[in-house]
Amino acid sequence: MVRRPTPEDKFSFGLWTVGWTGTDPFGGPTRPALDPWEYAEKLAELGAWGVTFHDNDVFPFDADAATKERIVSRFRQATDAAGLVIEMVTTNTFSHPVFKDGGLTSNDRGVRRFGLRKVLHAVDLAAELGATTFVMWGGREGSEYDGSKDVYSAMERYKEGLDTVAGYIKAQGHDLRIALEPKPNEPRGDIFLPTAGHALALIAELEHGDIVGLNPETGHEQMANLNYTHGLGQALWSGKLFHIDLNGQRGLKYDQDLVFGHGDLTSAFFTVDLIENGFPGHPDGPRYDGPRHFDYKPSRTEHLDGVWESAKACMSTYLLLADKARAFRADPRVQEAMEYAGVLDLARPTLDAGESVEDFLAADDGFDPEKAGERDFGFVRLQQLAIEHLIG
Amino acid sequence: MVRRPTPEDKFSFGLWTVGWTGTDPFGGPTRPALDPWEYAEKLAELGAWGVTFHDNDVFPFDADAATKERIVSRFRQATDAAGLVIEMVTTNTFSHPVFKDGGLTSNDRGVRRFGLRKVLHAVDLAAELGATTFVMWGGREGSEYDGSKDVYSAMERYKEGLDTVAGYIKAQGHDLRIALEPKPNEPRGDIFLPTAGHALALIAELEHGDIVGLNPETGHEQMANLNYTHGLGQALWSGKLFHIDLNGQRGLKYDQDLVFGHGDLTSAFFTVDLIENGFPGHPDGPRYDGPRHFDYKPSRTEHLDGVWESAKACMSTYLLLADKARAFRADPRVQEAMEYAGVLDLARPTLDAGESVEDFLAADDGFDPEKAGERDFGFVRLQQLAIEHLIG
Amino acid sequence: MVRRPTPEDKFSFGLWTVGWTGTDPFGGPTRPALDPWEYAEKLAELGAWGVTFHDNDVFPFDADAATKERIVSRFRQATDAAGLVIEMVTTNTFSHPVFKDGGLTSNDRGVRRFGLRKVLHAVDLAAELGATTFVMWGGREGSEYDGSKDVYSAMERYKEGLDTVAGYIKAQGHDLRIALEPKPNEPRGDIFLPTAGHALALIAELEHGDIVGLNPETGHEQMANLNYTHGLGQALWSGKLFHIDLNGQRGLKYDQDLVFGHGDLTSAFFTVDLIENGFPGHPDGPRYDGPRHFDYKPSRTEHLDGVWESAKACMSTYLLLADKARAFRADPRVQEAMEYAGVLDLARPTLDAGESVEDFLAADDGFDPEKAGERDFGFVRLQQLAIEHLIG
Amino acid sequence: MVRRPTPEDKFSFGLWTVGWTGTDPFGGPTRPALDPWEYAEKLAELGAWGVTFHDNDVFPFDADAATKERIVSRFRQATDAAGLVIEMVTTNTFSHPVFKDGGLTSNDRGVRRFGLRKVLHAVDLAAELGATTFVMWGGREGSEYDGSKDVYSAMERYKEGLDTVAGYIKAQGHDLRIALEPKPNEPRGDIFLPTAGHALALIAELEHGDIVGLNPETGHEQMANLNYTHGLGQALWSGKLFHIDLNGQRGLKYDQDLVFGHGDLTSAFFTVDLIENGFPGHPDGPRYDGPRHFDYKPSRTEHLDGVWESAKACMSTYLLLADKARAFRADPRVQEAMEYAGVLDLARPTLDAGESVEDFLAADDGFDPEKAGERDFGFVRLQQLAIEHLIG
Repeated sequence: MVRRPTPEDKFSFGLWTVGWTGTDPFGGPTRPALDPWEYAEKLAELGAWGVTFHDNDVFPFDADAATKERIVSRFRQATDAAGLVIEMVTTNTFSHPVFKDGGLTSNDRGVRRFGLRKVLHAVDLAAELGATTFVMWGGREGSEYDGSKDVYSAMERYKEGLDTVAGYIKAQGHDLRIALEPKPNEPRGDIFLPTAGHALALIAELEHGDIVGLNPETGHEQMANLNYTHGLGQALWSGKLFHIDLNGQRGLKYDQDLVFGHGDLTSAFFTVDLIENGFPGHPDGPRYDGPRHFDYKPSRTEHLDGVWESAKACMSTYLLLADKARAFRADPRVQEAMEYAGVLDLARPTLDAGESVEDFLAADDGFDPEKAGERDFGFVRLQQLAIEHLIG
Repeated sequence: MVRRPTPEDKFSFGLWTVGWTGTDPFGGPTRPALDPWEYAEKLAELGAWGVTFHDNDVFPFDADAATKERIVSRFRQATDAAGLVIEMVTTNTFSHPVFKDGGLTSNDRGVRRFGLRKVLHAVDLAAELGATTFVMWGGREGSEYDGSKDVYSAMERYKEGLDTVAGYIKAQGHDLRIALEPKPNEPRGDIFLPTAGHALALIAELEHGDIVGLNPETGHEQMANLNYTHGLGQALWSGKLFHIDLNGQRGLKYDQDLVFGHGDLTSAFFTVDLIENGFPGHPDGPRYDGPRHFDYKPSRTEHLDGVWESAKACMSTYLLLADKARAFRADPRVQEAMEYAGVLDLARPTLDAGESVEDFLAADDGFDPEKAGERDFGFVRLQQLAIEHLIG
Repeated sequence: MVRRPTPEDKFSFGLWTVGWTGTDPFGGPTRPALDPWEYAEKLAELGAWGVTFHDNDVFPFDADAATKERIVSRFRQATDAAGLVIEMVTTNTFSHPVFKDGGLTSNDRGVRRFGLRKVLHAVDLAAELGATTFVMWGGREGSEYDGSKDVYSAMERYKEGLDTVAGYIKAQGHDLRIALEPKPNEPRGDIFLPTAGHALALIAELEHGDIVGLNPETGHEQMANLNYTHGLGQALWSGKLFHIDLNGQRGLKYDQDLVFGHGDLTSAFFTVDLIENGFPGHPDGPRYDGPRHFDYKPSRTEHLDGVWESAKACMSTYLLLADKARAFRADPRVQEAMEYAGVLDLARPTLDAGESVEDFLAADDGFDPEKAGERDFGFVRLQQLAIEHLIG
Repeated sequence: MVRRPTPEDKFSFGLWTVGWTGTDPFGGPTRPALDPWEYAEKLAELGAWGVTFHDNDVFPFDADAATKERIVSRFRQATDAAGLVIEMVTTNTFSHPVFKDGGLTSNDRGVRRFGLRKVLHAVDLAAELGATTFVMWGGREGSEYDGSKDVYSAMERYKEGLDTVAGYIKAQGHDLRIALEPKPNEPRGDIFLPTAGHALALIAELEHGDIVGLNPETGHEQMANLNYTHGLGQALWSGKLFHIDLNGQRGLKYDQDLVFGHGDLTSAFFTVDLIENGFPGHPDGPRYDGPRHFDYKPSRTEHLDGVWESAKACMSTYLLLADKARAFRADPRVQEAMEYAGVLDLARPTLDAGESVEDFLAADDGFDPEKAGERDFGFVRLQQLAIEHLIG
């Protein structure tokens, strides 16, 4: 029904997505674990262009150097053979008990030093494998209780850690950028850098912030009750949308990591519209051209067949939505409705070119607020056109 | 039971708080409206130090210059006589129909120009009345439907507006700082700058960002499912906590604006602890020393007696919590538990002074992750000490 | 694009929906108020089959008998002329200050008696106008503070009030059923009967519960973080789905009352699927065949043009979804996927016909839990088929 | 600081609470697992009166009869020796992969039969050990996708399962009541019987509903954005509060299972007030006199020391709140404020004794709605008295 994806679509998957075996807080695995290269080969077969992984998705936490090398080499052979790009690598600083209070901001300095070294090693691995993005999700950087963390110290240590890593990347000459992944909670009660906004705010304080940007995840922003597409928009405006994690979430609950489009479908439509078509009023404005990366989990009710079906579903939904979004933008009725709604007019500066504040204050625009207050913006009609394109 | 507040406590109230007459989406006013000076006089009598207002809390939207001057002058006489400081002034760019799609980011350029002028006039009024903070809450800057706003344009216009206002403040030599008030939704489906983080991120992009900071509101951050005290912490760390709005919210619903402490009480305790006692690991770290400003609404079930009781309750709860927080910090058991939990240790840099990344990577810390993973952090005990101080 | 609705579609609208003039907690009306008959005439023109109203949507709270009669009579002429059915009438026990602590459960007995009389009068009006459903939304039956309500008393008074009204309906011989409308909060902090479940539980305790059922509203159940379609399902199973309120809500925030389908679109699809096609495993199971009633608000940014566009959008989206749902059910791939997923198998009793517990416990099913644990349920594939029908 | 609990306090704990070793969706265990009797002995030492467990908290899922008997016998010796009551037993129908789509409502009939037998066996075990409550938490009875479940069938199967179990209890003459535990989501996207209300509604449809009631959990109701104490109140009113699960939750996120009082503290105060003091207007009304049962998890950052501290904290907080609640009710200012607020007046029927609806409609109460609308209910002052008792 939907066309098969091709490498040009730039779809990529984390190994931990199809590789999730189903352990959740109330039950153990429902599926066997395959070897990392088996996931990679199958993803390539389904039409994926890239794969990504945490260090410990590939080799165990306590693997020695020889074991790591052997496994990584075996994995690389598989990706090379399959024509897969390893576009992003990240570190797991959350699964082992040592990280139970975080990695870069653990209250235990020994842990912080250990965590920072683990990150630096993963950076070298990322560079070695040709990845261009290094995601950092500080999933356990946070707290359950306000009294257990000095937030000032936590921000200082987060900054220290990030600047150390970014500085190291520059010093090593790696062609690599860091992408922070915000999340409001789970597994900690409150996680630092809970939203795209908070992460952007931290980046602005870094010494090496030029190579640090964002990797916003659909469900994570929605778990903070926020509009994901607005978050992408602000990140793009700040020049910081380095990577994305697409998935689905149904409201304020645990991190569901559903198939992309199986959460808020209308929001997914506008996300794809932004990625594929850019800002309507800024044809030359910033665009995201990185991987279409899925960070989801095949439902625990599914066995391996369901795992592959779910990976296909992520890509199919994206492709369907991309077609819909293109048709939406091209429809003259939509263009007329956007005009009517003033969507494009917002690109015009509020002050005239060269207008001083004095002139502006003195000018008589002949503006009648009562009359202007009667304007019909037509936002509902525009939205209905979007819905009719989406489901029509 | 609780001591009477004094001006040294720096409690202030918005006129719109005690002045809210009870109109909500399902019903009209349940209380009469008093004149602005009547609210001010009563607040002074209850022990408040300051008052704040939107331009149209004092004079009507369509008042002519003479009317404005007469009313403002009458109001100022009252505050002077009562010994009240007018510490903050703000503009209403959300009640009149003309602002139904926002002020600075309305899709209608005429509205943007009208809104920006209204803000500039309010800035002059703020300066004239001796206010040192100018709050900007962009309550209608946002959308219900993703298709109705070009987010890039919206960020551009927000920046243009803020830089124009901040530049004007500097040019006029006003002793005034702007404080942005984030809110995730209501009255719009999604508001731009939904959290403290997003506002900090925008400020970092401003030309005149040095005089632009935050006015975070308890309930607003909580409506984004976030930890308010963490938000204050990050704002302080960024040097941007210019003002605060204290109130109460019970979970994810409409903006309740309850009395401070009538929402999440434990969170309120830690908020007061941060304001009064600063960061535990940073005795010389940044502190908030601005007004303790309440932005709340007396419940609609109350008549005027209940209005004054609710204003007293805000101050009483704050004073009680401040006493509790001081005793908490001074308790040797708490200090011991903080040590045990590593709270103070987080202030220590992860790298040694002068340690290079190369040295760091080469160093052998003799760290055993398995053993470190068995550390008992004692966070629950520390939290229980807080609870026992709070209710003991 | 979408066909024009006809009376056979049984679409109905509350007068207060298109009649909402835009007052919200932060601003006044943005649209003029029309006369009740003007809304009705326009709705008929757009293809609606029915209208509904609160008493005070038609005549003022303090109208005398003659005024009421005159206005109601004028209204009825209009609906008769337009061929509109007045399918439901309800009482406003929430707007006037007297109801600020509720109607049937106000702590003030005088108010309770006044409120109950108002309801009884509206019941007579409903019967007189031929309505068959009398909705009761206890919007202000609740509290902000746990100490201000004795919940046992509140349940007693709610029961007393409902039984009085239901008993009166029977005694008068009215052909009228009561439909309770649950809501978790807004305008009160916590409303009694917060969900469909709580209302069903109360009904089970009534003396005259046989003529009392539910009117679940999409957004209200979603404001309790719940699955609306599951709520409809349980209500149907209990034989209590008397009426529905369709609209849209985007997450946990204020009551948005968006156009149907402008909230959670996938949920809306399955809601329509249940209404139009019934339970998949129970071809002869209970069905909802009442009005498709919209309880929404045209966005405040719209003027009258937008009001009519939004009413059309509610109906168009419903019709589109109904077509999609029919095609979904008819698709052999879907039927196969439902089989594979065991959806229809759940209709089979767990025990065999006539099987005693003793036999059941003694029987050897030859069941292997390890093997059964490996079943691939195919839920993701089935969901993807739904998504592809929805947007394909 | 707080007195040591005694058996008279009737505190009980699930073995799975102190026994949780820290596995969460993003990491493995951080603590060793002890033998079941070790937890029991330690809990007795801390002052607990009772323990509770799931079958597989004590013996493995695949244990044979001899193993079960040996372990249960060893466990019982320990509880007897420690003087602990085994007050409640429950079944685990959620951890093993076979239950990935639920137990009683799995789409797989083989699983339903297997699950029902497992429940029946656990019922016998409960009776054998002298438990008087049998909790049923249907944690995996639900779905992620609306299309994957026929809700009518699910309700039918739930009813069939519950009636089979309840009928069996009666037939066996066990002194045992079933308590359903509602939860809105996690580990399934939407769980059936999501709230106390939905479970009450189902019970009303059962054949053997007389021995089926509720076990509401603090955090579960709050995950549905609901007021826990209101839920307890409605359950008591319906005569169905058979058991309780006390813990803490901070907002809408994953199931946190914090220490009781470490979530919403003010809500915890009113919960304890209801349990200890009953309904204020109904001195002879229904009371909960069952176990004060904690269903929480010691934070994953804690090792065994922290586990015991957290168990102590649950009991200490409860005892502190109980003292506060007694003082609150005894305070004459509170009694006066309750009178003023009409809290007790709500116990009075709305109709006079023997008053017919006709008389009621004809009576002239001399009621003036305008004047009544000006009543000051004093709810904020009453709440502030509660807060001052709580933290004063």
